[in-house]
Amino acid sequence: MNEPALLPKSQSTLADVARLAGVSVATASKALNDKPQVRAETRARVKAAAEQLSFLPNILAQSLHQQRTGTVGLITSDLEGRFSIPILLGAEDAFGAGAVSVFLCDARDDAIRERHHLRALLSRRVDGIIVVGSRPDPRQTLGRNIDVPVVYAYSPSLHENDYSVVVDNYGAGRMAIEHLLACGRTKIAHITGDPSYGATHERAAGARAALNENGLDFVSGHPLEGSWSESWGRGAAHMLLSQGHDIDGIFCGSDQIARGVLDTLREAGRRVPEDIAVIGFDNWEAFAANSRPQLTSIDMQLEKLGNLAARKLFSILDGETARGIEALPCKLVYRESTAAL
Amino acid sequence: MNEPALLPKSQSTLADVARLAGVSVATASKALNDKPQVRAETRARVKAAAEQLSFLPNILAQSLHQQRTGTVGLITSDLEGRFSIPILLGAEDAFGAGAVSVFLCDARDDAIRERHHLRALLSRRVDGIIVVGSRPDPRQTLGRNIDVPVVYAYSPSLHENDYSVVVDNYGAGRMAIEHLLACGRTKIAHITGDPSYGATHERAAGARAALNENGLDFVSGHPLEGSWSESWGRGAAHMLLSQGHDIDGIFCGSDQIARGVLDTLREAGRRVPEDIAVIGFDNWEAFAANSRPQLTSIDMQLEKLGNLAARKLFSILDGETARGIEALPCKLVYRESTAAL
Repeated sequence: MNEPALLPKSQSTLADVARLAGVSVATASKALNDKPQVRAETRARVKAAAEQLSFLPNILAQSLHQQRTGTVGLITSDLEGRFSIPILLGAEDAFGAGAVSVFLCDARDDAIRERHHLRALLSRRVDGIIVVGSRPDPRQTLGRNIDVPVVYAYSPSLHENDYSVVVDNYGAGRMAIEHLLACGRTKIAHITGDPSYGATHERAAGARAALNENGLDFVSGHPLEGSWSESWGRGAAHMLLSQGHDIDGIFCGSDQIARGVLDTLREAGRRVPEDIAVIGFDNWEAFAANSRPQLTSIDMQLEKLGNLAARKLFSILDGETARGIEALPCKLVYRESTAAL
Repeated sequence: MNEPALLPKSQSTLADVARLAGVSVATASKALNDKPQVRAETRARVKAAAEQLSFLPNILAQSLHQQRTGTVGLITSDLEGRFSIPILLGAEDAFGAGAVSVFLCDARDDAIRERHHLRALLSRRVDGIIVVGSRPDPRQTLGRNIDVPVVYAYSPSLHENDYSVVVDNYGAGRMAIEHLLACGRTKIAHITGDPSYGATHERAAGARAALNENGLDFVSGHPLEGSWSESWGRGAAHMLLSQGHDIDGIFCGSDQIARGVLDTLREAGRRVPEDIAVIGFDNWEAFAANSRPQLTSIDMQLEKLGNLAARKLFSILDGETARGIEALPCKLVYRESTAAL
């Protein structure tokens, strides 16, 4: 498996036009919208640049330009809010406190409810919509005939003309293994979650690539796939130990799995991190900071995702054409469960 | 300590007026607002009823009545969203999907941010505001000069003229102990959290009242207060065991504390629930359903709280005068960690 492809992000953008014409984005926007504040000569230069780059402004976005409400709708099916809340916080804060207000709508994985919310949001004249899936897999587009910009966060849209910002799960898998390798671990297992999730395979592929580059593979030959639960973590760790594998590092697909792994290792008398280093995923404070020992984990930086999603919505309103999938890097949060041998 | 007082909820409401006049609430509203659809005789009867009951309609609410936006602002400082999300879901669903959209604003426990959000919400013409505190203790009012209704949920307002809907922590403490007593337990300890929280004392007081009514008290003579963490749960359980107390039940102030208690009991070779029954608080699925054994817990029914908060906002818009603190009962969620002796 290769690194997740970044689709071509756009044809040319307003920023490209501005650069070619040697003016600011604001001036380019004014020139293309025939605002009086721009000199005729500048306007002509901007229009020539737009023509040269085949720049297609978003007409609908332009028509809304003058009547923004500063509101954004966030439609999610993440009932617990564990993933959508940090995304909302990032969106809300993208332009400073109070500049953007976010309607949080829970679709509860129900397409009819989602349409209800969409209709309500449009009638409330939101400037744009952020769609956050309940899992990091591709989802259907809301449709291309919505007259405000729509940005997909966490779960990418299946429609190639939509813009989505997602977590770089492949890179995160690499990052986890590279950290274990840096700790001097070479006999590494991967206990991960539900194999129906695309992220499960992306993380495993990134992990395997990092191992292979160092002439290694998973000690058990393949990742152990199960569910995103502590009980699976306990069970899988039991299995690894009882099969007699010699292990000095375990990369877990979630902090809950890691929590179960830690419990089993402790009960089996294996010391963490001295004998076996363990790294989790999600950086879920309630689990990572309360386990024994505290858990090193991968943070998906969802606030950054939300921040970018909101900024992109307003860039699209300003005339930028954005499409394709943009993957943001994760961050390693170092605690006690990993250390150099 | 007595049960939390219910302040007088209101002077008379529009519903009272309608009942006395023998008409529907809608008709009473139209009559008082001099709408043409009401016969003169009916109007006179309604106005007489209003006078008899000293009914004081909410003038500001009336002025907004005709121009509702169907939007509500929810201002919270609960960064994790663990308490505010269920409240939001309840509010969002109070009138069916899409009927009410909720702006979720995070004040991050910062008064300046809270004012920013409040100003933004008012400029966006929300119909009302729900304030959700980051902890269940009383908080300052947002002020009485806001021209939309404000309802406080989870954390009550300190201002007696505000309306707040909160969790009945006292009743929840009773409920936990009554369940342990029903399981035949009589040697009961209470390991709870941060003593700076009012809820800590309310739950303990309810628990003690239920014990006293049965001629019992906490085995250690008093609740063990600490923090809302697993590590405190582990430490407190260690302490109880090492002091040689004979214990057959433990009421924990949170599921995280209970999780720590369960870990210590298992490691000490005490069987749950056979030797010691354990009950938690919060019904936090990720902890309660993943512990060994699965944890019986108290659910605060926060969706009901949010539902009531939203309904109350719109009742106030319809002319009801609501003030004081209303406490909603919790619910016992029975799992494996408690059972009859």
